[in-house]
Amino acid sequence: MRIARFSRGDAVSFGVVNGEAAQPASLTITPIAGHPFAPFQLAGEPVPLSDVRLLAPVLPSKVVGVGKNYADHAREMGGEAPAEPPIFLKPSTAVAGPRDAIVLPPGHGEVHHEAELAVVIGRLCREVPRERAADVILGYTCANDVTDRDLQKKDGQWARAKGFDTFCPLGPWIETDVAPDDDRAVGCTVNGETRQDGRTSDLLMGVADLVALVSAAFTLLPGDVILTGTPAGVGPIVPGDDVAVTIEGVGTLSSRVVARD
Amino acid sequence: MRIARFSRGDAVSFGVVNGEAAQPASLTITPIAGHPFAPFQLAGEPVPLSDVRLLAPVLPSKVVGVGKNYADHAREMGGEAPAEPPIFLKPSTAVAGPRDAIVLPPGHGEVHHEAELAVVIGRLCREVPRERAADVILGYTCANDVTDRDLQKKDGQWARAKGFDTFCPLGPWIETDVAPDDDRAVGCTVNGETRQDGRTSDLLMGVADLVALVSAAFTLLPGDVILTGTPAGVGPIVPGDDVAVTIEGVGTLSSRVVARD
Repeated sequence: MRIARFSRGDAVSFGVVNGEAAQPASLTITPIAGHPFAPFQLAGEPVPLSDVRLLAPVLPSKVVGVGKNYADHAREMGGEAPAEPPIFLKPSTAVAGPRDAIVLPPGHGEVHHEAELAVVIGRLCREVPRERAADVILGYTCANDVTDRDLQKKDGQWARAKGFDTFCPLGPWIETDVAPDDDRAVGCTVNGETRQDGRTSDLLMGVADLVALVSAAFTLLPGDVILTGTPAGVGPIVPGDDVAVTIEGVGTLSSRVVARD
Repeated sequence: MRIARFSRGDAVSFGVVNGEAAQPASLTITPIAGHPFAPFQLAGEPVPLSDVRLLAPVLPSKVVGVGKNYADHAREMGGEAPAEPPIFLKPSTAVAGPRDAIVLPPGHGEVHHEAELAVVIGRLCREVPRERAADVILGYTCANDVTDRDLQKKDGQWARAKGFDTFCPLGPWIETDVAPDDDRAVGCTVNGETRQDGRTSDLLMGVADLVALVSAAFTLLPGDVILTGTPAGVGPIVPGDDVAVTIEGVGTLSSRVVARD
């Protein structure tokens, strides 16, 4: 099942997307009553997806990222992967929706795309053993862990380089029919050209272990997001670029790059 | 004016505290209608403060911290203060209220208190010039930027070492009658013994400049909190300790230290 959040006119709600992703004209969305973190009912008729505006599929209280979780990306960053990936936080104000702009702030450095599989937490949890990780996961979406590479090096702490407004596009929806250890392609194109082309089977720490690691540090709330790290191929994006993150079997998250006035 | 958040029976609300802080029996709280981020009205009769449970005075969407913002603390950490303080994030799940426990997680390292003046943002803002910082500040409260010093060094990124549940006690209330450049004592006692005894006049980057710096990176929402850094004297806290952070003219934030089962 694909769960999206959308606006139509003045109304914002969650909904269920049906149809074939490969045939966009076939896609419809049916609103649900309330939120998707408990059993829910449909609450309306399906409407064409082209008639609504998709929003970020969740409003997370926190986005937890991990660094250097693919060996080839750790190498391209000039180091080896550590035994345990470093954990960082992106603020909720960094979240952007599908087709929203990635806005480069004044004085920015070289800003990179980072295509990532994002895990959406479905219920309040803490200290989740890896064996029970699937129980607390609502589903998966695409993320772009946008990073000001120059500021990342200068600051040491990554909060600012990865935390600017719009530096965390999420979407287009949450796919619930994915298992934590499924092998899926994680790709990124810029203006149609392939930049990243990895597979989640190359994750150094897999989804279940990441949920265990992160939930040992922080209580996770429904809608919180864990970013699982990016494969090799990161590179600069500049105003005017169209960036697309695709997770096989989940969907494609597209963003335009603009400069803040 | 002192604005607190409190529970009484099943009800949670904001309220205004009156009376002399030096005479706890004189303190009362009067509930307000709604929240304090817009003009509000009193909505009830004053009740003795001892009849309610004070909660963290805000539920921030994010807590932004800065490191090494007092020269004497930068020195005790074995370095010099940088030109611009490093910025980090603590998740909202780290927030604890006055008299709540600081809970040390399993396998923790040496955990330190860090007494800090906390700035509470009053309205949505971005790119605030230092001259207008006072306009976006609702008031000030006490914070303890609790830090697992061993994990801070091991991780490099500070999100986990400073982000465990309960590692951000805030309170006891928000004092609104403070100007950004007021000189105030910032102190911490452990079991009644003075550990930290600084003054905000020694902040390397003052409140107005911090608001400008942080709001240049992130949109700030009403209730968001900026921690201004800690003076020298940080040190370990262990289960059984009583820790108290006092900001002159604001109040005292007390916490018990316990170990998580």
